[in-house]
Amino acid sequence: MIKVDVNKEYLTVEEVSAFQEAFKRCARRIILATTLAGSGHPGGSLSSLSLLLMVYAIAKVDPKNTRKEDRDRVVISHGHISPGVYSVLCEYGFFPEEPFLLEFRRAGSAFAGHVEQAVPGVEWNTGNLGQGLSAACGMAKALKLKGLTRHVFCLMGDGEQQKGQVIEARRWAVKFGLNNLIVLIDYNKLQIGGSIFEVMPQDIAKEVEATNWNLIEIDGHDFQQIFQALRSAILGKVKDPSKPTAILAHTVMGKGISFMENDPKWHGMPLPYDLAKLALKELGFPPDELDILMQKRKETPVRFPHQPHDPLPVSIKLPSVITIYPPDKKTDCRSAYGVALAELAKLNNLGEVPKVLGLTCDLEPSVKMTDFKKVSPQAFFESGIQEHSTASIAGALSKEGFLTFFSTFGVFGIDEVYNQLRINTLNKTALKVVCTHLGADVGEDGPTHHCIDYLGLLLNLPDWEIYIPADPNQTLHIIYAIAQRKGNIFVGMGRSKVPIVTKDDGSPYFDEGYQFQPGKADWLKEGPHGVIVTYGNMVSRALKAWELLKEKMGISVSVLNVASIRPFPEEDLIKASSLKNILVVEDHLVATGLGVHIASFYAQKGLTVNLKLLGHKEPASSGHPDELFKRAGLDPESITKSMIDLIHGIRS
Amino acid sequence: MIKVDVNKEYLTVEEVSAFQEAFKRCARRIILATTLAGSGHPGGSLSSLSLLLMVYAIAKVDPKNTRKEDRDRVVISHGHISPGVYSVLCEYGFFPEEPFLLEFRRAGSAFAGHVEQAVPGVEWNTGNLGQGLSAACGMAKALKLKGLTRHVFCLMGDGEQQKGQVIEARRWAVKFGLNNLIVLIDYNKLQIGGSIFEVMPQDIAKEVEATNWNLIEIDGHDFQQIFQALRSAILGKVKDPSKPTAILAHTVMGKGISFMENDPKWHGMPLPYDLAKLALKELGFPPDELDILMQKRKETPVRFPHQPHDPLPVSIKLPSVITIYPPDKKTDCRSAYGVALAELAKLNNLGEVPKVLGLTCDLEPSVKMTDFKKVSPQAFFESGIQEHSTASIAGALSKEGFLTFFSTFGVFGIDEVYNQLRINTLNKTALKVVCTHLGADVGEDGPTHHCIDYLGLLLNLPDWEIYIPADPNQTLHIIYAIAQRKGNIFVGMGRSKVPIVTKDDGSPYFDEGYQFQPGKADWLKEGPHGVIVTYGNMVSRALKAWELLKEKMGISVSVLNVASIRPFPEEDLIKASSLKNILVVEDHLVATGLGVHIASFYAQKGLTVNLKLLGHKEPASSGHPDELFKRAGLDPESITKSMIDLIHGIRS
Repeated sequence: MIKVDVNKEYLTVEEVSAFQEAFKRCARRIILATTLAGSGHPGGSLSSLSLLLMVYAIAKVDPKNTRKEDRDRVVISHGHISPGVYSVLCEYGFFPEEPFLLEFRRAGSAFAGHVEQAVPGVEWNTGNLGQGLSAACGMAKALKLKGLTRHVFCLMGDGEQQKGQVIEARRWAVKFGLNNLIVLIDYNKLQIGGSIFEVMPQDIAKEVEATNWNLIEIDGHDFQQIFQALRSAILGKVKDPSKPTAILAHTVMGKGISFMENDPKWHGMPLPYDLAKLALKELGFPPDELDILMQKRKETPVRFPHQPHDPLPVSIKLPSVITIYPPDKKTDCRSAYGVALAELAKLNNLGEVPKVLGLTCDLEPSVKMTDFKKVSPQAFFESGIQEHSTASIAGALSKEGFLTFFSTFGVFGIDEVYNQLRINTLNKTALKVVCTHLGADVGEDGPTHHCIDYLGLLLNLPDWEIYIPADPNQTLHIIYAIAQRKGNIFVGMGRSKVPIVTKDDGSPYFDEGYQFQPGKADWLKEGPHGVIVTYGNMVSRALKAWELLKEKMGISVSVLNVASIRPFPEEDLIKASSLKNILVVEDHLVATGLGVHIASFYAQKGLTVNLKLLGHKEPASSGHPDELFKRAGLDPESITKSMIDLIHGIRS
Repeated sequence: MIKVDVNKEYLTVEEVSAFQEAFKRCARRIILATTLAGSGHPGGSLSSLSLLLMVYAIAKVDPKNTRKEDRDRVVISHGHISPGVYSVLCEYGFFPEEPFLLEFRRAGSAFAGHVEQAVPGVEWNTGNLGQGLSAACGMAKALKLKGLTRHVFCLMGDGEQQKGQVIEARRWAVKFGLNNLIVLIDYNKLQIGGSIFEVMPQDIAKEVEATNWNLIEIDGHDFQQIFQALRSAILGKVKDPSKPTAILAHTVMGKGISFMENDPKWHGMPLPYDLAKLALKELGFPPDELDILMQKRKETPVRFPHQPHDPLPVSIKLPSVITIYPPDKKTDCRSAYGVALAELAKLNNLGEVPKVLGLTCDLEPSVKMTDFKKVSPQAFFESGIQEHSTASIAGALSKEGFLTFFSTFGVFGIDEVYNQLRINTLNKTALKVVCTHLGADVGEDGPTHHCIDYLGLLLNLPDWEIYIPADPNQTLHIIYAIAQRKGNIFVGMGRSKVPIVTKDDGSPYFDEGYQFQPGKADWLKEGPHGVIVTYGNMVSRALKAWELLKEKMGISVSVLNVASIRPFPEEDLIKASSLKNILVVEDHLVATGLGVHIASFYAQKGLTVNLKLLGHKEPASSGHPDELFKRAGLDPESITKSMIDLIHGIRS
């Protein structure tokens, strides 16, 4: 295992030659692993190999303790070069080579087709290009916040530079002073479609410099040059030491195997049996080991243990009492969120290292992060109109021992960044996404700004808890509750002011004594003739309908508030089924909302009910929310009518 | 109404003064409209106003015939400046000002909060920043393809330049030679969070030049300078006339109203009553008209007609016979897609203007567009790893009289670009998204590449038809069928080879005589003991289970192939309910797949069945598809067991 120290000025001839030998050993593993698996990406693995070898030789990472907090991070953004990464990790003693060679790309194995954290030494699951640099930004910022002087090395492909998210991340890194971030671009000039200059002409160097990064251009297979570039970046011997550095490393696709070099065919295809043997021979290894390993692979079950990579824990203080809004207070849930967030900052962020972080994308006043920012400016990250990158950055921060809130409008925090949240999920992040401006409740800004598909999207992320408070008081309870909960959590709310939900005696329903329980719904009203199941900004309208039904029609229904969408309140919904007439009301597309899932739940349980679902059949227009709800049949009068119809449907 | 001709060298003093007067009239409308509506974006409307006035004065657009094919296009990317846009369109006679002032931002009105095509003169609905330039690229390319010498003017905000999608679009414009594209950036240096240099430092000029565009920097309120810049761009008097041009126009937020200038507060807030009157006075108009209009607005219903903006029709020739794959053929659905696409190109693309377009993002061989490209290279657009921009570009092209196919893997064509498809939907595009590599069927590339949420996402787009073929023959039928269907359509398929589905006599089920019918499912097998409802790559596994049930257990079930997910095959599912035992099998998350919607359909219809849903409970790992399906209980043996359990559940 080679370790080099950047404090010395040059690599010795012996060191260079040791790297060259290591290159061959790793190239052998790359050929073996991909041919054995019958799939994988040998071409880019070989072009990135010299860079990988040098980065891990320099990086302060302990192969025996890969989760030490005070370590350098190595992020592989072009995750398809997993054979190269695993080969180098073998070389440096993170694990023996046999499980890698025998298990690569097999079902249930840690050694997946794209790099995964299950493998010791891998920091971030990637595979969808363009997201790794954002994750690296999050890690670099986490180190800075903790006062750790470590570096983050991010290896990237060149084709990947085309993704817009990359330049978003680059700007963020400059704004937040990430001079501990070093990017190495594997500039082999080939992507699946052929030459990068033909597929999508791009001047990577010019673009990097346009964002004010330091740029070093080198031969990416010359170990002395790679060492010098990394040394300069680490020691700050660059044009502007306050800025991050990119190393544009000219490389060769398929490097080291004569007949693979510069052929894009080997981007995503393993060598067939005969060529693999030829390659092994060229590298100076006995070709026959391919046959031996093929046989062994067939006989060996998948058994290498997955290395868990849980988020670092964070201990959060909560206020001893929650100051409840009185029944006559007219405010919106997002203001309550702002209050809770500022309170969390006061209790947890006044030490040297803040514990609660907040990120937004040019919507600080709208999402009510202003007070949070005032209390702890060092913990607030105005990330510009760059939602894709910000969602990934926030995900990475949430794993580093920070309670991380990402807030923006629903259409930006869910619809625009769905795939970034999905990759966060695969990385087992612990992000709290709190979106304001859900629903047609947004009103006049119109359909581009109406997020009426948030459940439709979020329910595809199996690990996410989903909470939608009914009023500002329940918002306070939920925000404090999630502050101490692990994992990924979504909290959503509308834009408008909503009435305080009250008990029959007129006092706040969600009072000091209320305890928010995931998986539990709230029976705001109980009546025998049916039940209105609802949540969020529809609750006040359902309660008005309850009143109309009672006063005008003598009908007494229940009103069930489902603030906990996931975990799903099974018990309450079973209880609801006994009321037979069930009307689900939501400011959401009816095709993909809660109603569908309630219906499906009953169908699968074999529970027969009279069910009607109210929601949007199509996008609403621009206009006042009350008008829009009326047009969609979601105003109190329409809800009342629907409930009467439903009840009459049975009686007749 | 001012019209200026770029062939003359300068604006006269009289013309400049006419623009200055027009500015005041439009500023008045901006103030009135936003204050009357009680919401809206006056600040940016005023900073963009001089640019808008000059662009429409130069643009070859006929206010009386706004959909003429041979016209210049004006795309407003920062859609929140709708008050400015509508004011200028009034000024130039597209419609009278009264409906705009009285209806702006009211429910059901054409004059929405963010620009919408319902208003004559508006080309593209925007509001989510960063997408307009991509749409403009699509329009500019459409003009070039048709040999029309018109221009596309795209107005953008400066904060918006932060979105990664913007640089993706810029590169595409260069690659595809869009020198008929002219961008005007309203450089007022303020966004919601304050100074753009503080919110997210960015050197817009440097970034533009890094992508090899022409750049002209001007005072964005000096009409002579705006005229000169546009004149140079239009006449090709720029550094490189083969490239698009960006005009970076220094402007002032709130321009023209002394107390509004340079105050970011007025980005998204109307002037209150008193200040609005003050502003009118400053502009030289009687303040009292505010009161008169307020009263009139209350009394007047919304009635200005929406202007439809349907996609241009395209007439497509189909092959007279479909060459069916024989039963012993082992191929994948995507190869059949490739065959059909090449065939469509042969029949429709050999004239001067191609009718069928294909776009992909560095996945041409995988999505089988190679033959299409060979037949009609001018109709094929390799768009690089830039999915966000490509989805918007493809949407715009699909409205211009081209049958437009956008193909990539499921995770990129749906998960990554969901919000771009959503905005396409609001723009009533007619895009055909054909995604390969759906499901855990992708196998070894692992969970980042497994699209197991495609229905979960697509069902949120109310207008999209969704088709998933069962085998290569059904793929051929579906691709030819959608080639003649309007609107947005999704077709999805897995990666792997699948057996040809056959009739009992061993001949292909989807043969020459088969007619694909949206909203109709296929009864591949009919048996009385229950039904396996399935689609896509699960069909062959369900058919194996059918065999196992029959041969080993003497159980005879039906197998129903639901290739038409939307329109939903209601009749067939009602028929299925009579078989009582219904097992839904899908390579999709069970939480959001077809099964949930079938369950919900039965629950809402009051149909009682014994229902079991099989699918993924969580993301699958990397590995061979057969192994992954086994682990998820989706292999033929597990399906068989589930069906037996379901049947026994009743019998016992």
